[in-house]
Amino acid sequence: WAKEYKHVCKRACQRAVDRLKAGALAVEAVTAALVELEDSPFTNAGMGSNLNLSGGIECDASIMDGKSLHYGAVGAISGIKNPVLVANRLLSEAQRGKLSAGRIPPCFLVGRGAHDWAVSHGIPPCPSEKMATKFSLSAYKRNKRKMELAEKLDTGHNQTKKRRQSCENENGSGCLDTVGAVVVDLEGNVAAAVSSGGLAMKHPGRVGQAAHYGCGCWAENTCNMNPYSTAVSTSGCGEHLIRTMLARECSTAMQSEDAHQALLEAMQNKFISSPFLASEDRVLGGVIVLRCCRCVEAPPSQNIQGILVEFLWSHTTESMCVGYMSAQDSKAKTHISRLPPGTVPGQCLAIEGGVCRLSVVE
Amino acid sequence: WAKEYKHVCKRACQRAVDRLKAGALAVEAVTAALVELEDSPFTNAGMGSNLNLSGGIECDASIMDGKSLHYGAVGAISGIKNPVLVANRLLSEAQRGKLSAGRIPPCFLVGRGAHDWAVSHGIPPCPSEKMATKFSLSAYKRNKRKMELAEKLDTGHNQTKKRRQSCENENGSGCLDTVGAVVVDLEGNVAAAVSSGGLAMKHPGRVGQAAHYGCGCWAENTCNMNPYSTAVSTSGCGEHLIRTMLARECSTAMQSEDAHQALLEAMQNKFISSPFLASEDRVLGGVIVLRCCRCVEAPPSQNIQGILVEFLWSHTTESMCVGYMSAQDSKAKTHISRLPPGTVPGQCLAIEGGVCRLSVVE
Repeated sequence: WAKEYKHVCKRACQRAVDRLKAGALAVEAVTAALVELEDSPFTNAGMGSNLNLSGGIECDASIMDGKSLHYGAVGAISGIKNPVLVANRLLSEAQRGKLSAGRIPPCFLVGRGAHDWAVSHGIPPCPSEKMATKFSLSAYKRNKRKMELAEKLDTGHNQTKKRRQSCENENGSGCLDTVGAVVVDLEGNVAAAVSSGGLAMKHPGRVGQAAHYGCGCWAENTCNMNPYSTAVSTSGCGEHLIRTMLARECSTAMQSEDAHQALLEAMQNKFISSPFLASEDRVLGGVIVLRCCRCVEAPPSQNIQGILVEFLWSHTTESMCVGYMSAQDSKAKTHISRLPPGTVPGQCLAIEGGVCRLSVVE
Repeated sequence: WAKEYKHVCKRACQRAVDRLKAGALAVEAVTAALVELEDSPFTNAGMGSNLNLSGGIECDASIMDGKSLHYGAVGAISGIKNPVLVANRLLSEAQRGKLSAGRIPPCFLVGRGAHDWAVSHGIPPCPSEKMATKFSLSAYKRNKRKMELAEKLDTGHNQTKKRRQSCENENGSGCLDTVGAVVVDLEGNVAAAVSSGGLAMKHPGRVGQAAHYGCGCWAENTCNMNPYSTAVSTSGCGEHLIRTMLARECSTAMQSEDAHQALLEAMQNKFISSPFLASEDRVLGGVIVLRCCRCVEAPPSQNIQGILVEFLWSHTTESMCVGYMSAQDSKAKTHISRLPPGTVPGQCLAIEGGVCRLSVVE
């Protein structure tokens, strides 16, 4: 599927850049990228999401705007093709201020209520059957058989012991493939978003990191306290990413000078070796990180300012597909990042990234 | 209602202390306290919860164990009398390790799925009608009329402007009264829990801070990096408590030496003046905080060790009812804490607390 993943990443980058060129802010651009990623039947988000234990599809998504620091999220939502559009709408409604009679608008909606709110705000419903794919249905049948077999084997044994022993993660590829994006716009605002169908065979109602504040995505513009604007989006095993609040931890770490070193230490100390995951033998996750600051690249008299942008990614999963593009590029670059040969997923990490300089005429 | 609040706080303290004396760990004791608080028809949690926009009851609750750092939460759950029991059960199931076929157990369940999981794990369902009280029903009717009136007045005017103007918080008392508790046991383990019926007239599916990791409660035993064990539980406007991650921020702050000063600064800088709430004119919330460390109170040869326990509370709401008790006390103390006269709720704070020393014979 490497080719398909690269294709969809390319298209998502292109969509976001098109919007930025048309004058959109970071939040709109990151939403456009996510819609493209959700629409692909190959990703575990929107169309083609993993099926849950009862064969249904329930999606999580969230978005954060680094400028207003507002945030919107939906959890375990069914029957909506693009969950990120609901998260985006919650964010923009919250920015509008209080509702009638002084009520505070929600930033996080789940389940049936989230679906109804979306539809009443003009987001079209989509029958769940249409969101399943040939692949997700056959994976469901395979997983169901696997589970039944595992449970049959368990019968008569000490359940607790068995549970602890069956620690190999059975999630093959195509199962953890949450999608996310990070964007900086021409004004230097950052935004981040994430969307996921959740773990295969999850219990109905289970909400993963993609809907969890601080865990699925994070975006914060530069301010007095923070020299850098940062945006982070995470992917992997939701429970691990929730309990370590990985998106926010990475964002905080990125305020120190050496971005590469900071991300390496965050992934090592706040994720793989986190005291919050002391009982876990394999800690699976990945992050994409963007950080930027203004820089002067010509005499100030010329009114040309630059934004120094660093884009990094890191993961403990066997592989992660990444794409990136600036408005100065004619097309997106994509890359399948892999753990170094001989290393163990969940215990070791890969980290890569690059720097680019964007000119802004003011 | 001051008297009722004090009574239920007293009973909750007594319940927790009874469990501790019987040898229970902090997590069990904090759960027992919460059950008592949820069962009171006077609190906005469990029985007597606020009704949502469509007249239903949907509850949030979460619990965290400072020893294992595990966490369990339910959001927008209906038809369960004691949501904290479901959160507690999720926590203990997660501690048992993986499910069949290597599946990771959920830490956060919402809506219908949460209800079904609870019932399948032996927690009895309770018809929603039984959870409404005469008071919550009449508040619903009153709020409904108020909303209809406000929306009628809006018709023909500029909606956005009106929304921004109607900023007075209309939540009378009896509306924000989320409940929470923090406990330290004889081994020095801490635990925290929180439970809430959410804002009155909230949209169905809205999840508040009580179900949100890092926002509703936090508990962390002492470790290499942290000299103190800390436990925090928050109450107030869910969206404000989520966006500031107040429970975790307070816990982090409490690692510095002067507990009173640390909590004061956290409430001022991370809540009232938080950059995350820059657009809010009134920031409503309260916290109860417990921190402790071992101390030597007799020659070590006597094998008598002590735990130095500090219990503090702070709030920006007009008032907050607090109760506390140690196993050495014959009964709980309760107190209605109020903002200083002439100060403005949401912009000023009250802070109080005390220290006690517990002896532990080893």
